[in-house]
Amino acid sequence: MARLPRALEELIEELSRLPSVGPKTAQRLAFHVLRSEAGRAEALARAILAVKTRISQCEVCFNYADGRLCAVCESGRRDGLVICVVESAVDLLAIERTGEFNGLYHVLHGVISPIDGVGPGQLHVPELLARVSAGQVQEVIVATDADLEGEATAVYLSRALAPLGVRVSRPAHGLPVGGDLEYADELTLARAMSGRQTF
Amino acid sequence: MARLPRALEELIEELSRLPSVGPKTAQRLAFHVLRSEAGRAEALARAILAVKTRISQCEVCFNYADGRLCAVCESGRRDGLVICVVESAVDLLAIERTGEFNGLYHVLHGVISPIDGVGPGQLHVPELLARVSAGQVQEVIVATDADLEGEATAVYLSRALAPLGVRVSRPAHGLPVGGDLEYADELTLARAMSGRQTF
Repeated sequence: MARLPRALEELIEELSRLPSVGPKTAQRLAFHVLRSEAGRAEALARAILAVKTRISQCEVCFNYADGRLCAVCESGRRDGLVICVVESAVDLLAIERTGEFNGLYHVLHGVISPIDGVGPGQLHVPELLARVSAGQVQEVIVATDADLEGEATAVYLSRALAPLGVRVSRPAHGLPVGGDLEYADELTLARAMSGRQTF
Repeated sequence: MARLPRALEELIEELSRLPSVGPKTAQRLAFHVLRSEAGRAEALARAILAVKTRISQCEVCFNYADGRLCAVCESGRRDGLVICVVESAVDLLAIERTGEFNGLYHVLHGVISPIDGVGPGQLHVPELLARVSAGQVQEVIVATDADLEGEATAVYLSRALAPLGVRVSRPAHGLPVGGDLEYADELTLARAMSGRQTF
């Protein structure tokens, strides 16, 4: 098989490194870039470089930000009594999208994982404890993932926060809304049953 | 909902313009770039710019190339008696992948489409006729898509090539290998029946 132009092969290789982009998708995307106007390709390349240079982390909650503070911390209309702890800024975004939470956040940028050598010190946990110690905060919602490491991180945080006298909570687990009971996995169904609520 | 950092929003917008990348995928890719090492993001940006600046079109067949000639035309081991006409370099790649074709190609970079104002003159058709007129070529396989415009282009080319005394052929249509007859669409099944071959 005749080889591709080198620059095209390199782009396919770079695109293949992106999550959920297989070799076929990478090839289709690379050909698309090749056929697109030069202006479009330049805009894409510029945007990629810009996220690495122009985005900072919020000094207070470590969410991504344009400047010193993120949009949430900067807003004067958020409830400073509640902090929701999340693993990543993507999780923060998912909660924001519900429109149900009006408190502040704290982004860990990871979970406690002894196997990967990640401890609380690498996760902005000291900064969280300092925020809570500073007073005002009444509740910390630990919204880490419902997997092993997320649960372990939640347990760790609940213990670390206990002496500070705040309420520590965790989002409810159960059946997805609109979901079919028979298709729920056993663990989720078990959690839904044990966490049942009276009418 | 709190807004995202501007650079992140811009990258999501640029990524959304790529084919089959919806807003959710664009967001996931953008966050991935944001979290990746600076070197990776720079390599991706550089690769995007490089395909626009470093790739040329082959002077003979208009396939993408590193220099004046593409890898197929440059190779001394291809059969110059047969030219396979394709709509795009991606189609060329698909045929190369079969390993069944050892001739040369001619990439139209489109199909005849009066609605879009695309005529033979915009499609390197004159160059194809010149290549065939120059002698040597014995067969032209017109491997344009099996859709309306691809068929119309094939008919046009077969007429334009007729006076030059070459054989003009078209890849066979029929049931996909390993495919189930009952799931074939009616048009394909009809073509498979009328194009049936004796054992």
